[in-house]
Amino acid sequence: MKVSVIVIGDELLIGQVIDTNSGFIARHIHPMGWEVNDVQVVADTPEAITEAVNRAFANSQVALTTGGLGPTKDDLTKQTLCSIFGGTLREDPEVTENIKEVFRKRGIKLNELTAAQAWVPTSAQIIQNRVGTAPVMWFEKENPHRVLVAMPGVPFETEHVFTREVFPKLLKTFPAPYAIAHHTIMVSGITESLLAMRLDAFEKALPPHLHLAYLPKPGLIRLRLDGHGENNEKLNTEIDAQIAILKQECGENFLCDGDFTPAEILLNELRDSELSLATAESCTGGNIAHLITSILGSSAVMKGGIVAYSNDVKTKLLNVSPEALSTHGAVSIPVVEQMAIGASEATGSDIAIATSGIAGPGGGTTDKPVGTVCIAAYAFGKVLSNTFHFPGNRSRVIDRASTTALLLAHELLKKN
Amino acid sequence: MKVSVIVIGDELLIGQVIDTNSGFIARHIHPMGWEVNDVQVVADTPEAITEAVNRAFANSQVALTTGGLGPTKDDLTKQTLCSIFGGTLREDPEVTENIKEVFRKRGIKLNELTAAQAWVPTSAQIIQNRVGTAPVMWFEKENPHRVLVAMPGVPFETEHVFTREVFPKLLKTFPAPYAIAHHTIMVSGITESLLAMRLDAFEKALPPHLHLAYLPKPGLIRLRLDGHGENNEKLNTEIDAQIAILKQECGENFLCDGDFTPAEILLNELRDSELSLATAESCTGGNIAHLITSILGSSAVMKGGIVAYSNDVKTKLLNVSPEALSTHGAVSIPVVEQMAIGASEATGSDIAIATSGIAGPGGGTTDKPVGTVCIAAYAFGKVLSNTFHFPGNRSRVIDRASTTALLLAHELLKKN
Repeated sequence: MKVSVIVIGDELLIGQVIDTNSGFIARHIHPMGWEVNDVQVVADTPEAITEAVNRAFANSQVALTTGGLGPTKDDLTKQTLCSIFGGTLREDPEVTENIKEVFRKRGIKLNELTAAQAWVPTSAQIIQNRVGTAPVMWFEKENPHRVLVAMPGVPFETEHVFTREVFPKLLKTFPAPYAIAHHTIMVSGITESLLAMRLDAFEKALPPHLHLAYLPKPGLIRLRLDGHGENNEKLNTEIDAQIAILKQECGENFLCDGDFTPAEILLNELRDSELSLATAESCTGGNIAHLITSILGSSAVMKGGIVAYSNDVKTKLLNVSPEALSTHGAVSIPVVEQMAIGASEATGSDIAIATSGIAGPGGGTTDKPVGTVCIAAYAFGKVLSNTFHFPGNRSRVIDRASTTALLLAHELLKKN
Repeated sequence: MKVSVIVIGDELLIGQVIDTNSGFIARHIHPMGWEVNDVQVVADTPEAITEAVNRAFANSQVALTTGGLGPTKDDLTKQTLCSIFGGTLREDPEVTENIKEVFRKRGIKLNELTAAQAWVPTSAQIIQNRVGTAPVMWFEKENPHRVLVAMPGVPFETEHVFTREVFPKLLKTFPAPYAIAHHTIMVSGITESLLAMRLDAFEKALPPHLHLAYLPKPGLIRLRLDGHGENNEKLNTEIDAQIAILKQECGENFLCDGDFTPAEILLNELRDSELSLATAESCTGGNIAHLITSILGSSAVMKGGIVAYSNDVKTKLLNVSPEALSTHGAVSIPVVEQMAIGASEATGSDIAIATSGIAGPGGGTTDKPVGTVCIAAYAFGKVLSNTFHFPGNRSRVIDRASTTALLLAHELLKKN
């Protein structure tokens, strides 16, 4: 089955908001063998919405829209859907009740404009949105059979209603016709093109119903083997066999099975080994701690961290020696190694990661240009450290340094 | 002028990668009066790419594509563009030289597959990509006049080539025909619907060439007044006058001019007052420090931070009293106030922000359910603190707590 996603909102077309809903939907439906055929981001006008729905229905059985349902004046989606699917707007007392309940929970008073969100097309089945005020509207038409589901655009609400209500209802309406499966592995320490050359023979030998995709991320490459077939069991056996060959081809560059972030890879390893972690961050400024603590269950592993932006903080909280700072500078291997050891001692953690570098755009010198980052990982009396040169702007340097630091800690663990 | 953005790549349609390029392009061209008419995310197949280009050219003079130009086998964009615009692939020696140079800088050896990226359509003008190996291709056709620019998909490369090469060339090709302008203000402490009711008369009184858009973010609402007219000066005077009225209508909920993140709002304020900042984060786990240090120039303000995930770290590094922890628990006003004071003392900062809460999904109790977050801001012997209840999942609670903490510190500064 093919799905078209329509993301509605002027704020997306001027770049003030980034669409994450289509990706969420895609990740959810992909394992069912359903494909997102295309994503259209369109303006909040009747013409653009109508045209997008027509395009969607030309290629896909299902159109999922997000956004365009807010209480303010720039939202015309409901009226437009009435003109496409027929019907008029009516007040739905259950929606009114739900809106009142949502407002009660938030501790604020209902007002007229929000109450208008309870007006819904008579041509739609209404699905309650328990975490917001805009209800979900399910439209269906025959010859050919087409479904359009209009969902709210706030990512938290979209994710909630899609997971709990819309996806189960879609599964009932369109049972999966054939088997589909995929398996992702992570590879590091090699460029995409070098890897592709190494895997050329493997790719050429794949049967036509299997496909290998390269999905590079900063510092990593994800390899995803997709396939479709008549039954799940046979397909999974085939994919498992090919993945075993693939891992051999990747050799020491193979990192792990599955699609994980570097923070997840390290956290999984630490959890399995019952080890605790601390961070000492200068140029990454708390990003590594944030990446770790964003993960569910990280509190079992994470002791804490120090963001040591000033040299004062480096000496006072991380016990970095003033001599190392004055002799080698803050961005140096001796300092970053002392930071890692200091973080482990200050927090009582088994392992610690430290970064010190020049994220830019200012602060670079001839010796240490912007993008120079010293990284150290410390565990059980051993230190692994290195100086890296990352290309790009401030946010890219922070990203790359964070990823590299997490993978360096993982490498140190693997070696011990 | 209208622009259609085409984002090419299977990895986007299965949700493994989020498109940020279209937003970047939109933010860049919007001030020139150019509109992004739509964004299409399509598969890496000749059919999907051809259909997307046809749709784009039906509505827009310019189509900008990103992605689909990598060295691996799943990239068919170049061949497809040859079949649309004519021509065949030829090796461009200048591109070969550039690829070699990029590899030299990265310290890695050129290989066959990457060398193939120097093969480009004879129908395209080639623009060198100095930060990557895939060149930019500029196609043009007449009757009607249409331009397609194919750019690489790695966000850093797209941003680089678009800003330096593609945008200036587009400006020469399509000079702006009329004036367009917009002004954004930030509002906090009010719901979108309540604000919309308050601004109803203001909106109704706007002339037809001005338009007010509501752009809510967690904890904030951005109000953007857009307009177009015959000349820039007259339009800006009109917008300035309406913005002055709008600010009065917003009253004490008005936060600042411009489109800023809460971290930028606080950082600007601190920089103007020459004050320094520290953070003490439990449930936000380094996110506040990360949001601050992501901003260019934050090192002038940010002293450092402590991610105090374990109670040990809270007592040892932030001087939180074991009594407060045992009597009130880690998620309490007394503890979070001590954390803020402790962070200021440990780092020598003028002002400090602290958070302690239950981000979930585990750890909630009847008294303190998931989403309960205590936040304190401390400056010059004064503390402002409060307990909040944020809805949503872990990442949403972390986001909301971070935003609220940054705005609370801003409020404390404003009061003093």
